[in-house]
Amino acid sequence: MGNDTSRRPLIGIDVGGTKIEAVLLDESGAVAGTLRIPARRGADLVVDDVCAIARDVAGDRLADVTRVGIGTPGQVDSATGRIANVVNLDVTELELGALVSQRLGVPVHVDNDVNAAAVGAAAVVLGEDLDGTVVFLNFGTGLAAGILIDGVLQHGSSGAAGEIGHVPVDPNRFPCPCGQAGCLETVCSGASVARLWPTDDGVPPMPDLIARARAGEQAAGRVLGIVVHAIVDTLQIAAQSVDPKTIILGGGMAKTGEPLVEVIVDELRTREAACPFLKGLDLASRLRLAPFDLPTAAIGAALA
Amino acid sequence: MGNDTSRRPLIGIDVGGTKIEAVLLDESGAVAGTLRIPARRGADLVVDDVCAIARDVAGDRLADVTRVGIGTPGQVDSATGRIANVVNLDVTELELGALVSQRLGVPVHVDNDVNAAAVGAAAVVLGEDLDGTVVFLNFGTGLAAGILIDGVLQHGSSGAAGEIGHVPVDPNRFPCPCGQAGCLETVCSGASVARLWPTDDGVPPMPDLIARARAGEQAAGRVLGIVVHAIVDTLQIAAQSVDPKTIILGGGMAKTGEPLVEVIVDELRTREAACPFLKGLDLASRLRLAPFDLPTAAIGAALA
Repeated sequence: MGNDTSRRPLIGIDVGGTKIEAVLLDESGAVAGTLRIPARRGADLVVDDVCAIARDVAGDRLADVTRVGIGTPGQVDSATGRIANVVNLDVTELELGALVSQRLGVPVHVDNDVNAAAVGAAAVVLGEDLDGTVVFLNFGTGLAAGILIDGVLQHGSSGAAGEIGHVPVDPNRFPCPCGQAGCLETVCSGASVARLWPTDDGVPPMPDLIARARAGEQAAGRVLGIVVHAIVDTLQIAAQSVDPKTIILGGGMAKTGEPLVEVIVDELRTREAACPFLKGLDLASRLRLAPFDLPTAAIGAALA
Repeated sequence: MGNDTSRRPLIGIDVGGTKIEAVLLDESGAVAGTLRIPARRGADLVVDDVCAIARDVAGDRLADVTRVGIGTPGQVDSATGRIANVVNLDVTELELGALVSQRLGVPVHVDNDVNAAAVGAAAVVLGEDLDGTVVFLNFGTGLAAGILIDGVLQHGSSGAAGEIGHVPVDPNRFPCPCGQAGCLETVCSGASVARLWPTDDGVPPMPDLIARARAGEQAAGRVLGIVVHAIVDTLQIAAQSVDPKTIILGGGMAKTGEPLVEVIVDELRTREAACPFLKGLDLASRLRLAPFDLPTAAIGAALA
């Protein structure tokens, strides 16, 4: 967790559609406390809840805290701290950064949730070794990437860097809520896999899909083929645009763990057998799984 | 041409499959001389020719020159100046940078031709205003991108940054010489368009294709649709991965000029009509054509 150079306590808050998670990082960058509360809808309640969890996680150290970082879904202007169109929280527009900063009396930085998760996962997986380019692929409800160069988040000229989920490449041309057809997100996001491979309540689809495909179930093999094809297209797009030295697989789908890595590597090897250029890139050696035993998104929000 | 901060003469050399082009940039960064000679095959002749054209373009100013920059096709290790597998020049492996530097007594930087062209096109199109991210898309014989952030070329961790030509996305699944199928390069590179739309000798295919499609020729309309679809997929991949503020269209296909921009913008508008996210990116406003009245690749080699 190297990019905290201030060596003062930091608060990180990950605002999700169903929960808000907070972390206090101490002077050394270590996790000194975590908290989780349910998310409530509406702009006022979001501000109330963010301020409350910040106070609670910091306790009597609030006066020492030098910065609060917040990661949220929706459109985020990280320069101003303004957020917009956070559908899951019924927020149309909100000066989240300014309002929280005013109430807590601490500078606030707001970034989008995927970017925050990218910073947190990179810090946890790579520690101080943040030289070069790292891509964090968030296979969550949606699909997006966070790109770090030498530990610095890349937002792009309009905040759209890493929005590769809405690149239309899938020959199946599934309709996408964004209005296009065949977006990567329509095939290899958590929501898409749940649609392509419905399971009983509480059973995560991706591990079930892989297990059944391996057991020889034909329908599972067919759907897994479609999903993994799109995952590896996503990897190639990330790798062949910015050529990262590390690609971190994150988001809910990545909780599948090693079986997910194995099916990805199988597909990579198949493509590499036909393509010396791809073989030379050796993308398999660049893959890492995001850790799930730490609140990486909240940690990243603190460090972003 | 702002990134020459040394304010001393620089030589830039663009080594192509059929010609070698050189430029001398004076203390102010202005073009003080250009030369062009036919390319000859084989490692020894390439070194001879590069040294000869450098001496000739510099004339009696060679002693003042502080750096020679070379852009070449093939695999380029810009850290060492070693090049490999330059098929068009019969070069398997060559210490191009070291050998030229030794003979001329001047430091030499070698970069790949697309990266050099990216730097040159950005300098000519944008002048001193190189803040932020710029993507140069080279629709040449092949398809690749050069990415600049704040005027600095991005090579990636293995020199593969910008190699988006070999992202497989095309639902037509044309076989690619790289071994994959459906690579972008199989549809929207100069070589692919020449294959999809053969013309008489000396007639560039892209302007002919656009003119005939506009005149209502059905076959032309169908092929143009395939090509432009892949071009706009390429734009979306570039834009939604690194979110550049400027996208420069270069390479031989871009010599088509405004008619090419018009068919691209038409396709963008069609996609935007269905997708507010894409409409918000307004990629059409970011497009610029590379200039063809200046030796941009050689200028870029000097500045890279």
